[in-house]
Amino acid sequence: MSLAQKILEGDIRSAARLMRDIDDRMPEATEELKTLYPHTGRAHVVGVTGPPGSGKSTLTDKLIETFRAKGKRVAVVAVDPTSPFTGGAILGDRIRMNRHATDPGVFIRSLGTRGHLGGLSSSTADIVHVFDAMGWEVIIVETVGVGQDEIEIVRTAHTSLVVAVPGLGDDIQAIKAGILEIGDIFVVNKADRPDADRTARELENMIGMNHPGEGEWFPPVMLTVAQKYDGIPELTDKIIAHFEYLNTSGKRVEFEEIKSSLRFTELLRDRLFARVYQQISEDNALEPIICDIAHRRVDPYTAVEEILKKKVK
Amino acid sequence: MSLAQKILEGDIRSAARLMRDIDDRMPEATEELKTLYPHTGRAHVVGVTGPPGSGKSTLTDKLIETFRAKGKRVAVVAVDPTSPFTGGAILGDRIRMNRHATDPGVFIRSLGTRGHLGGLSSSTADIVHVFDAMGWEVIIVETVGVGQDEIEIVRTAHTSLVVAVPGLGDDIQAIKAGILEIGDIFVVNKADRPDADRTARELENMIGMNHPGEGEWFPPVMLTVAQKYDGIPELTDKIIAHFEYLNTSGKRVEFEEIKSSLRFTELLRDRLFARVYQQISEDNALEPIICDIAHRRVDPYTAVEEILKKKVK
Repeated sequence: MSLAQKILEGDIRSAARLMRDIDDRMPEATEELKTLYPHTGRAHVVGVTGPPGSGKSTLTDKLIETFRAKGKRVAVVAVDPTSPFTGGAILGDRIRMNRHATDPGVFIRSLGTRGHLGGLSSSTADIVHVFDAMGWEVIIVETVGVGQDEIEIVRTAHTSLVVAVPGLGDDIQAIKAGILEIGDIFVVNKADRPDADRTARELENMIGMNHPGEGEWFPPVMLTVAQKYDGIPELTDKIIAHFEYLNTSGKRVEFEEIKSSLRFTELLRDRLFARVYQQISEDNALEPIICDIAHRRVDPYTAVEEILKKKVK
Repeated sequence: MSLAQKILEGDIRSAARLMRDIDDRMPEATEELKTLYPHTGRAHVVGVTGPPGSGKSTLTDKLIETFRAKGKRVAVVAVDPTSPFTGGAILGDRIRMNRHATDPGVFIRSLGTRGHLGGLSSSTADIVHVFDAMGWEVIIVETVGVGQDEIEIVRTAHTSLVVAVPGLGDDIQAIKAGILEIGDIFVVNKADRPDADRTARELENMIGMNHPGEGEWFPPVMLTVAQKYDGIPELTDKIIAHFEYLNTSGKRVEFEEIKSSLRFTELLRDRLFARVYQQISEDNALEPIICDIAHRRVDPYTAVEEILKKKVK
């Protein structure tokens, strides 16, 4: 029986193995993913992003608890693209969430950077596919920061949560279009701190400027104190309401097409490059090109154009 | 006269125009860059990276001053890949550096994210080429954070400075191989704060674990208080010493080859994708593929493989 077949029968150890292969970029993983793909499209994928210190992990932890109480199986993909200076914090977060380790209805998978730009987003999508094909009902994708990488990753979730904290001060002015556009629900966490209402009001004003059309989802701003479980049931209900909105409004189909387009272009970019680069390497053409560029005998733009002429039909 | 020719004659307004075209990804920019490329390879490119709050911009500002006093023309490329939550800070920094605005021997160019993964690194390299071809002697590339994007960008500098501050606490334990590997000089800035020596010692221990070979550069840890100009002349001397080491040890050639290889693969990845994507779009083949993927009639991996079969010779 293939790995994919075992995974479709619910074997969690096979799923963990495939995820490791995905993370290690083993080419064999692709064949398994092909088998799994027709079984995807059922899960509710929830993205959680926000600046460091906003309490995303505690929030995720409490969301797991609430979805579990509703009888849903919850998978978490924790993504850390920023690696160098943040390694410590993430480890602590993972340990905190490990209280769910003995619950067979919870599966937490961490994904670190492999020093490969853009690759993390691709691995995350593949790992979400594995959980989805297995029939996990809720998949939470949590990222560490709010950089471009994180936005790209959270963009592929059905429901994206943007978490802020009171007293961001000047920072809140600096929240630009990029992050406002991806937020389906905004959360002001640690809302027992002063200025929580002001932060919520400022966020609401900024969202208001985006003017959703008639019948469109208007992103709410929710107040939570995740540590004390305050506001978590309401937030969970809102997350579920957003998924229902996608399904009943027909937006779900539109969303699947956008997501498919992003995934296709991302894969195309990666695989095209890998194929052509391998061919040049096998032809022993790589070294002379690099040498010519380094010694200014050819410019890199012309060198690449010549490769395109030779390799693209 | 072409834009590139005007730039080679030192016309700064033409340089600014080309940089805007590069930032806006105008295809015309490539032809100008081809003309400029043979004139590159003379500047000393200095990278500055470190976590937010480590005082990178003040440090850069003082380095400008010191290099100017030595009669060198200094260009700065300030890169901000993290955009959403940090916009405010960067603006303040730029204003601070603007005291050099009336000095024709200083040119500061900011580069923000264009919502395009990996594109920032490519634009930075092109802008460095423009300054280099014009004969600017020192080019400082400063990034906002220490994420993967920043590491990729600073990796292409001859001399990379990694800036830390005392009392990073747990964070310093979390500095991983990625950032240690790119650092040619480590700077503990704000060294009048308590624990500066301890932070320096910890950094030295971590670098010690990397064991450079005989005759190799051993990355020093320097203490500075940039605001007070403390340690800046010594740091500048060390930066110059590192460039001399590259030149006299023969490492410069090796470095140019690594840099050329990175630039070539990056351009190849971008242009290959752009070319093939455009062809598929023109064939009106894109929409049916996306639709098939969204409705699970084909998986994205197989769809991409079929494109490769058709488009790659």
